[in-house]
Amino acid sequence: MFDSIHEECGLFGIYDRAGERDVALDTYLALYALQHRGQESCGIAICDEGVISHHKDLGLVSEVFTKDVLANLGQGQMAMGHVRYATTGTRSRANAQPMVINHIKGTMAVAHNGNLTNAAELREQLELTGCIFHTTSDTEVIAHIITRERLHSPSIEAAVERAMEKITGAYSLIVMSPQKIMAARDPNGFRPLCLGKLGDSWLFSSETCALDTLGASYVREVEPGEIVVIDQNGPRSIRTHCGKCPSSFCVFEFVYFARPDSVVEGASVHAARQRAGAYLAQEHPVEADVVIGVPDSGLDAALGYAKQSGIPYGVGFIKNRYIGRTFIQSTQKQRENSVRIKLNAVSETVRGKRVVMIDDSIVRGTTCARIVRLLRDAGAKEVHVRVSAPPFLYPCYFGTDIDDKNSLIANNHSVEEIAQIIGADSLGYLSLEGVRNLAPQSKCGFCSACFDGDYPVPPPRVPKKNKFEQKLKRKEETTHGE
Amino acid sequence: MFDSIHEECGLFGIYDRAGERDVALDTYLALYALQHRGQESCGIAICDEGVISHHKDLGLVSEVFTKDVLANLGQGQMAMGHVRYATTGTRSRANAQPMVINHIKGTMAVAHNGNLTNAAELREQLELTGCIFHTTSDTEVIAHIITRERLHSPSIEAAVERAMEKITGAYSLIVMSPQKIMAARDPNGFRPLCLGKLGDSWLFSSETCALDTLGASYVREVEPGEIVVIDQNGPRSIRTHCGKCPSSFCVFEFVYFARPDSVVEGASVHAARQRAGAYLAQEHPVEADVVIGVPDSGLDAALGYAKQSGIPYGVGFIKNRYIGRTFIQSTQKQRENSVRIKLNAVSETVRGKRVVMIDDSIVRGTTCARIVRLLRDAGAKEVHVRVSAPPFLYPCYFGTDIDDKNSLIANNHSVEEIAQIIGADSLGYLSLEGVRNLAPQSKCGFCSACFDGDYPVPPPRVPKKNKFEQKLKRKEETTHGE
Amino acid sequence: MFDSIHEECGLFGIYDRAGERDVALDTYLALYALQHRGQESCGIAICDEGVISHHKDLGLVSEVFTKDVLANLGQGQMAMGHVRYATTGTRSRANAQPMVINHIKGTMAVAHNGNLTNAAELREQLELTGCIFHTTSDTEVIAHIITRERLHSPSIEAAVERAMEKITGAYSLIVMSPQKIMAARDPNGFRPLCLGKLGDSWLFSSETCALDTLGASYVREVEPGEIVVIDQNGPRSIRTHCGKCPSSFCVFEFVYFARPDSVVEGASVHAARQRAGAYLAQEHPVEADVVIGVPDSGLDAALGYAKQSGIPYGVGFIKNRYIGRTFIQSTQKQRENSVRIKLNAVSETVRGKRVVMIDDSIVRGTTCARIVRLLRDAGAKEVHVRVSAPPFLYPCYFGTDIDDKNSLIANNHSVEEIAQIIGADSLGYLSLEGVRNLAPQSKCGFCSACFDGDYPVPPPRVPKKNKFEQKLKRKEETTHGE
Amino acid sequence: MFDSIHEECGLFGIYDRAGERDVALDTYLALYALQHRGQESCGIAICDEGVISHHKDLGLVSEVFTKDVLANLGQGQMAMGHVRYATTGTRSRANAQPMVINHIKGTMAVAHNGNLTNAAELREQLELTGCIFHTTSDTEVIAHIITRERLHSPSIEAAVERAMEKITGAYSLIVMSPQKIMAARDPNGFRPLCLGKLGDSWLFSSETCALDTLGASYVREVEPGEIVVIDQNGPRSIRTHCGKCPSSFCVFEFVYFARPDSVVEGASVHAARQRAGAYLAQEHPVEADVVIGVPDSGLDAALGYAKQSGIPYGVGFIKNRYIGRTFIQSTQKQRENSVRIKLNAVSETVRGKRVVMIDDSIVRGTTCARIVRLLRDAGAKEVHVRVSAPPFLYPCYFGTDIDDKNSLIANNHSVEEIAQIIGADSLGYLSLEGVRNLAPQSKCGFCSACFDGDYPVPPPRVPKKNKFEQKLKRKEETTHGE
Repeated sequence: MFDSIHEECGLFGIYDRAGERDVALDTYLALYALQHRGQESCGIAICDEGVISHHKDLGLVSEVFTKDVLANLGQGQMAMGHVRYATTGTRSRANAQPMVINHIKGTMAVAHNGNLTNAAELREQLELTGCIFHTTSDTEVIAHIITRERLHSPSIEAAVERAMEKITGAYSLIVMSPQKIMAARDPNGFRPLCLGKLGDSWLFSSETCALDTLGASYVREVEPGEIVVIDQNGPRSIRTHCGKCPSSFCVFEFVYFARPDSVVEGASVHAARQRAGAYLAQEHPVEADVVIGVPDSGLDAALGYAKQSGIPYGVGFIKNRYIGRTFIQSTQKQRENSVRIKLNAVSETVRGKRVVMIDDSIVRGTTCARIVRLLRDAGAKEVHVRVSAPPFLYPCYFGTDIDDKNSLIANNHSVEEIAQIIGADSLGYLSLEGVRNLAPQSKCGFCSACFDGDYPVPPPRVPKKNKFEQKLKRKEETTHGE
Repeated sequence: MFDSIHEECGLFGIYDRAGERDVALDTYLALYALQHRGQESCGIAICDEGVISHHKDLGLVSEVFTKDVLANLGQGQMAMGHVRYATTGTRSRANAQPMVINHIKGTMAVAHNGNLTNAAELREQLELTGCIFHTTSDTEVIAHIITRERLHSPSIEAAVERAMEKITGAYSLIVMSPQKIMAARDPNGFRPLCLGKLGDSWLFSSETCALDTLGASYVREVEPGEIVVIDQNGPRSIRTHCGKCPSSFCVFEFVYFARPDSVVEGASVHAARQRAGAYLAQEHPVEADVVIGVPDSGLDAALGYAKQSGIPYGVGFIKNRYIGRTFIQSTQKQRENSVRIKLNAVSETVRGKRVVMIDDSIVRGTTCARIVRLLRDAGAKEVHVRVSAPPFLYPCYFGTDIDDKNSLIANNHSVEEIAQIIGADSLGYLSLEGVRNLAPQSKCGFCSACFDGDYPVPPPRVPKKNKFEQKLKRKEETTHGE
Repeated sequence: MFDSIHEECGLFGIYDRAGERDVALDTYLALYALQHRGQESCGIAICDEGVISHHKDLGLVSEVFTKDVLANLGQGQMAMGHVRYATTGTRSRANAQPMVINHIKGTMAVAHNGNLTNAAELREQLELTGCIFHTTSDTEVIAHIITRERLHSPSIEAAVERAMEKITGAYSLIVMSPQKIMAARDPNGFRPLCLGKLGDSWLFSSETCALDTLGASYVREVEPGEIVVIDQNGPRSIRTHCGKCPSSFCVFEFVYFARPDSVVEGASVHAARQRAGAYLAQEHPVEADVVIGVPDSGLDAALGYAKQSGIPYGVGFIKNRYIGRTFIQSTQKQRENSVRIKLNAVSETVRGKRVVMIDDSIVRGTTCARIVRLLRDAGAKEVHVRVSAPPFLYPCYFGTDIDDKNSLIANNHSVEEIAQIIGADSLGYLSLEGVRNLAPQSKCGFCSACFDGDYPVPPPRVPKKNKFEQKLKRKEETTHGE
Repeated sequence: MFDSIHEECGLFGIYDRAGERDVALDTYLALYALQHRGQESCGIAICDEGVISHHKDLGLVSEVFTKDVLANLGQGQMAMGHVRYATTGTRSRANAQPMVINHIKGTMAVAHNGNLTNAAELREQLELTGCIFHTTSDTEVIAHIITRERLHSPSIEAAVERAMEKITGAYSLIVMSPQKIMAARDPNGFRPLCLGKLGDSWLFSSETCALDTLGASYVREVEPGEIVVIDQNGPRSIRTHCGKCPSSFCVFEFVYFARPDSVVEGASVHAARQRAGAYLAQEHPVEADVVIGVPDSGLDAALGYAKQSGIPYGVGFIKNRYIGRTFIQSTQKQRENSVRIKLNAVSETVRGKRVVMIDDSIVRGTTCARIVRLLRDAGAKEVHVRVSAPPFLYPCYFGTDIDDKNSLIANNHSVEEIAQIIGADSLGYLSLEGVRNLAPQSKCGFCSACFDGDYPVPPPRVPKKNKFEQKLKRKEETTHGE
């Protein structure tokens, strides 16, 4: 919640064959439902009779898209949107997506969720031929590659198909040209992307919760390696890159990123989290009086732990619902206080009790320590922390910000040491086996590289962040929140 | 959540004897914790060596008090703050509180939670002597009355004491003069107000959750009819108006208004809500597969129902956490869609199941109907609605906006009819007896006038809203949200 | 321009009998034309079928009244507006005008240009009867007095008539009740106010330039002591207070405050300023090559000096037209640079020349010194400064901010010393006799108290600014411009 | 003033060898002085130890660069800035400059004043090799060309030198690399650019008025075709492209664009305008009583006409100084009224008089007609319009927005017809010969293509604006000003 792992992005696209919907409003509502996947910037591109307009900026969907801004985007037959948290590239307006560019065959809008592993190499190759880059994002690399391929491809989808031979890593992608909108997933299928239907309109979305918001129905996943192209003839599939490798869906989508009401890779996120709690109860049982979860993502697992263990479920914390950006969080000194600002223990639930507290992860440990202290201050007799995922030990190169080995507490400390640091009476992590079985009914495989270092795709050889970016990052950290 | 009853205000005050705290920041954080009590406007007044400065505006605490604004308030030895939802007086910047006024003896800041029942009479009497009013709020009436009494009273607290002989109805009050800060509650004790301590500082707060946020300890309730005055000698009590009548605390504070982590009138709000659920299970049992709550205030009662009934508790809905004011809600047509925007059913939990759904109230019924439909769309086989309070039948004159008999569905329809309207397989309300026993350990009495018409204080004889105000209201409704 | 004397306010009112105009837009445009009379805050009140709505805030007219805000004020039959620079009362949103208040007979909007000399006494008397004050402005005192008189007066205009017996000093006033709009000037007629006509509508305005903007025609001045009441029967006049004393119009309106395209008291401001220059040429001749004016108000006088003396007129300075509030001016250190930011010498005009430079006033001398230096840097051989008014020697109590004897350079220095301080080769002020003859065709008398100490109305006995206000003022100075 | 010709841009750059200045603040102040050259967007790029940061947005300098934004840019050794009015490319944030891009050799910031005549061809060539474009501006074409040349050039300045062989048309350019800042002008020298010095710092500026604001001294013009490179060794010159063709400076810089206090191409703008007036008096004499100018750029010419003719100079108009963007101007209907909002006639000056009115240009004639009517309404007996430039007959391809033959009134009407349309008693334009002799002391030649169709560089063969852009433009026109 405070000290957590971040996903890069959320994607949405819509093709309204019959011209019967307000595609800008639909995209707005969908992004609002996907807001949890990225709170830093957002954007919408709309295509009206072949002309693509767009608007994007830093801020939440409800901040960036005022009534006037949305109205100004006008009407169209296609639209796509993006929410972003920056894992690659600095926080800047230029890096917001969709990226809309002009090339020799016309205009193209591109939005991307994930991280390329060969972005730096591709970028260097492109620069060697004289390309210039306006941003530090992978999306611009992808746009360049597609454009290059477009020069000698018969169609935009053929260009995307060829581009997929060049780019490696994690990418769920939406590309809109003047006549078509298409979605693609990398052959490993790291990041989610599904197809939906609403009347005569077709939709792409990172999660089904956006489909639900619009009243649309879920059709199927875009498969790993697949390109789904939608034009006036409806959707069709390009499967050249399908089946090239086993799928490796990011298991942390189930544990933390996705909304519990979403279904991803055919499995309910809520059920997966309950299952995580149930496994935890089996793997790390403890005698206790109440099981509580750290809001919001620990709640489902707590319920699963309670059901499995027979220990009553309780409401242990109340989270302040007014989570607008208060400037209070910006100064490091005050950050120590910020857990209390956002979270309060319900002493009725924990006073005098032996408490099992479920959280989804422990990154640096400082936040967890403060939360445990909240419980002790509220009168908890014992606090047993259970984490609904294994310890982070390895950086992620596929679209999350688990990227610095040294800041991960589990790298330098045993479980016992961590328990002591966070002030818990006991600590238990979900096993690797457990996390791999969170969605047994799903047919996909999982990437668990952050837990076991088993990378489905080789990590980047060239470190991405350069001096330029580092300095910008430092500057921003000084200023933001003010 | 969408169609609900609103509380008027939240109050906070601090006296920092030792000059060791940042009282403006403390008040900011406290208001942030009390934000659920009023989201329309907020304000902070600070007193530095006898000089009172203040800032207030329409908006959330995090919007109104930017870093610069807060810094500009400077340091002081006392501060007080207010969050407001308008039940009386129109939505306008002028009605924001605290109200800071000058009178013959100096400056005074006043903030108020509640509704006077004789405001219109007092206002007319004052106007007949030539008084002018800048706002439509009861607070200005109170400020006038205190000022009048101050002319022939030896101290500000004596003036407040005498003013309490004149004003009737519901009021929790904080008054700050250049040297003192004081809190008062009406003799019935309709609205909460408690005393806290933090190091050498003394605090007043509507709810204990604000004390928790600051790390302060709860001392006791300000008693019905009591005035607690804090100056350099610490707190002292004026109890002239205590014990004049039985207390009648607003029971809806337990059911809906207060935060579940707060303790009000000596009782845990969370426990009271769980108890409401348990009583409901006894009063309206049903065979079902899962019990779910409508977020946020139905969750505790759902847990209580589940425990009492033995039916498993489940997570039935996910609420969008990004509740910033989207303009989408502003147009009536789109409002029909707004339940889907904010709430989504977890089909994993309800598909094929017989569901008990707990909500805290049904006002007009339209929102409840939409929520029930969400469950049906997600596959629920049966939906049994249980409401953790009795039906609203009578207007409230004590600080909530239950004020129009005709818009209350229970006034015109039987329980069976309502069940049909909202599309529920069955419907059960908590009994009056049940709601009166939500906090058995609390020594206070309860006001349940909105359920039974038994008004502890006679309702106003003069209707308050005039043509002027009505027109403004209409105008605002046209514009807001844009 | 940078270091100048400030006027308090500008006023406008309109009564649209036929309901054929957009009175909110008219008032907006009029205030835009009167913006030079006050840039700190502004407000508009509109009356629609007896219901008065209003909006006011800190900022320029174009900043405060966006399209939405203006639209939200709606339509009406009457409207009034105000622009304000604060001479009395601190810079705060609460002090913005019009002030709209409720009293026993209904609603009233009041706006005021000027300064009462007995405001402090009246305020104390009112407070002794229990009155409370929300602001520090004279306007609130006036509103109280009118309201008191209204209690035993048959009409609002009768109450205004009686109030004029109580209040002393400088006031041009517009009062709007649900059915009427009226204007009044103090018996001395310190501040301007005129009556205009546009189709069937009647208008009040501080200056005729607002009438011109609307395409309205000038009818006549509101006379000193007169009340002009406009209702459905058209205008009528109450003249009880007329002729009680000789008129004493503020001569500085001609020298500096009013726009040169305005006609005030029947005389062209432009002509008066040219005349000031001509008198200066007679009183302080000098051998020179070019005459230039300091923009904007020195330009007309420079033209007059040039014509009278036969020395060619030249464009000596270019002023940056983008005079938005840059934060640069806010820090004292940078202020030294701020003349260069706003003003640049045209070296073509002054290089190698003997220059006569006309300014309208010298307050502290620092700005004048910097402007003279600009000319020297641009190559001027000699700089002869001529000031189109006599030296300020006495504080003004009638609506300008000439209020601190010590900061007025002429109080402590001879003309020769000032010439040396500002770096001029010679310096000449317009004579008292000259300034009294700026508008020979006007039938009004003049107040020249700031030059000669001859106060037409006795100065206030009680100093107005209290500790409260001083502290606020200090705070604001620290923050503004940021 | 309302209906006028627009310049594209203003440029500024600074190299602070000694690290003794606040280069961000200097650039801010310089852009503030150059604001008249572009009010649509602005930007600043700063280079600190090789790392380039930047900020740019739509809006005035004082709006875009708040204190916080400027502080956030930090300190550096070099900075450059740009103000822009869009002649090419649509009004959008993406088109704001400087453009900062990454390429194989590092980072580069580019800003540009002018218009390329072969931008469309170059763009197509680049796109055929796979280049993508994020904007519709010429600047991105220039950035691409320089980057391409950089691949096989030993230095950035060599790349700029080679790029100048490829690009044709009008360009004054500033390019900043991590170690150097350089300025270049096209061989024709269409647009101004000069070199200044301030202590140990070197500066580039479009006009000298920005140097004056900073207290810097003017060194010399950057010559047509010249590249001036500044690094730690001070400035050095690359003159490969110098002297290739006769210079053709835009004569309209003297007539209208430049600030009168600036010296461009070695000649005073103020003097040139006075001279225009004097020539007009010789070419189009008339018997009259007063000569007035339309503010601001007609004033100097009016003074020249008056001096030459012996007819007295007068102040005929007062312009509202509060020229913030009022929304009033946005609706076409209200635009008819907008002359009155911004301009008022001084009837004192014109009543009963025969008036000579000098304006700098007549584009469509509608505004001029309204201004003439203002004079008639104010009582002018005769109005003789004199225009300080010849009639526009040909589109400009070199950086102004004179681009539509049909909207130019002089294309379809004789001088007599125009006189009738604008309601003038007589009308006279400055002759071509006159305009070519405005700056006799300057050694540059002039472009007068808009008057005589004699293009120094062949016009573009490919029309630039495409469907994409047109649609965006239409959308913007619908929304802006709201």
